[in-house]
Amino acid sequence: MSESGTQQVFGETENSLLTAVNDEFGGVIVEMEPQQHPMDAAAFGSVLRASIYHWREQGKKGVWLKLPIKLANLVEPAVKEGFWYHHAEPTYLMLAYWIPGGVHTLPANASHRVSIGAFIMNDKREVLVVQEKNGTFPGTEVWKFPTGAVDEGEDIFATAVREVKEETGIDSEFVEVLAFRQSHKFFFEKSDLFFVCMMRPLSFDIQKQESEIHAAEWMPFEEYAAQPFVQRNELMKYINNTCLAKIDSTYSGFSPVPITSSFSDEKSYFYFNTSRP
Amino acid sequence: MSESGTQQVFGETENSLLTAVNDEFGGVIVEMEPQQHPMDAAAFGSVLRASIYHWREQGKKGVWLKLPIKLANLVEPAVKEGFWYHHAEPTYLMLAYWIPGGVHTLPANASHRVSIGAFIMNDKREVLVVQEKNGTFPGTEVWKFPTGAVDEGEDIFATAVREVKEETGIDSEFVEVLAFRQSHKFFFEKSDLFFVCMMRPLSFDIQKQESEIHAAEWMPFEEYAAQPFVQRNELMKYINNTCLAKIDSTYSGFSPVPITSSFSDEKSYFYFNTSRP
Repeated sequence: MSESGTQQVFGETENSLLTAVNDEFGGVIVEMEPQQHPMDAAAFGSVLRASIYHWREQGKKGVWLKLPIKLANLVEPAVKEGFWYHHAEPTYLMLAYWIPGGVHTLPANASHRVSIGAFIMNDKREVLVVQEKNGTFPGTEVWKFPTGAVDEGEDIFATAVREVKEETGIDSEFVEVLAFRQSHKFFFEKSDLFFVCMMRPLSFDIQKQESEIHAAEWMPFEEYAAQPFVQRNELMKYINNTCLAKIDSTYSGFSPVPITSSFSDEKSYFYFNTSRP
Repeated sequence: MSESGTQQVFGETENSLLTAVNDEFGGVIVEMEPQQHPMDAAAFGSVLRASIYHWREQGKKGVWLKLPIKLANLVEPAVKEGFWYHHAEPTYLMLAYWIPGGVHTLPANASHRVSIGAFIMNDKREVLVVQEKNGTFPGTEVWKFPTGAVDEGEDIFATAVREVKEETGIDSEFVEVLAFRQSHKFFFEKSDLFFVCMMRPLSFDIQKQESEIHAAEWMPFEEYAAQPFVQRNELMKYINNTCLAKIDSTYSGFSPVPITSSFSDEKSYFYFNTSRP
């Protein structure tokens, strides 16, 4: 029997079973489609029970159940059958079930948001800074580096290039991760990893984003660093000292190299200090 | 009117409103308790609608609604009132609603799992390695560094100390982040950040963890690096070269310093190259 691919199986009773795809770890994935499954809660509970019975006979372990938000009525019957919440995104809820019982070996949920701040300087020693319309310091006169969150599946260096372009219209190339900051309770129990990225500008004419950016300009680094907001903030001072060390000294951050995995087709990146062999 | 603290408010009708706490961003947080709210779906929908009306009159923006998994029956009525899924953990689902309409400014969900691998060597140039009972390479003869995922709210350096202790019984202190790897689709659309951590051993007698570790030992680094699994794997080779550069050369990684925020009581850590001023 094939260990991958879609299987649609029908039991001995008139109840059909759920359509499932085998995963790589001896489990199955069920992705419910609102169009294909107009189902009431009781009928769904019954089909789910029969399906679990079937998967148990097949020796399956983990069951992933993806319920689009339009099928919110099926959350309760799934929980009644023993499913728990694994993760959620705006449009769906992913539930999980562990057929063998005992402690499951399913991966833990994502715990961190990842964001970047872009340090980008021209050859007049001016740094690219913005005033945000919203954000942490709305309505203040604070000038700050372009910042932003890593999108789903996005590489850190790509986020930095994208955010600089989106907020200021400046083209840039990624140089190094100079430093990072880990903080907790970014929202509720989730944490944040903030990467300070050094960029090299490839263009210089600013076209600021209208929706989120109040103003953008090239500002002498010393003027940026002299802002009271920067002077009062311990993190900002560390960031500025790191940036200055990079410009004026021999500071080395981490640069990315692509890695080909022997286990999947996905390319990942290894960030390390390349200044020494 | 106080901008923080719990408010229990009753409307003009006989329907009570939901108990809410103000957040720092002009919104409210509702944490439903299974004991306090034995409520059927229709009644909940009605109270929720009245509460949203009340919060709108107060000028509130975001509404967070935390539903414990025991109240799975209230997911559907919340979605019917316009809530969407923000995130979920095994025991609860967090829904969100944006009263002003239009594009919301609530934080994006966590996108990354964070994990560590611990490089720890004694003065005989032996590295601490384990064979896992489960994990990526179960049932093989692969020797690898102790690894593990960052727990909720845990600092990277603390995870490294904890995992080495749990898996091998060895006490250690954190030295540096030598490098990190960002990969995607770790599970579904979530990504992974894996930090290679250099540790200094403070004890040397191995007491391996029975439940997850098949074997643990101090192994000559060259013997570890000569394993076919390591030789074939591009990431492993980069990691090993980085570790060797740290031992035999002047490689510099990132070290953490504590940062006190001017915005919260939470202490965060800034990781940077401290080898230059």
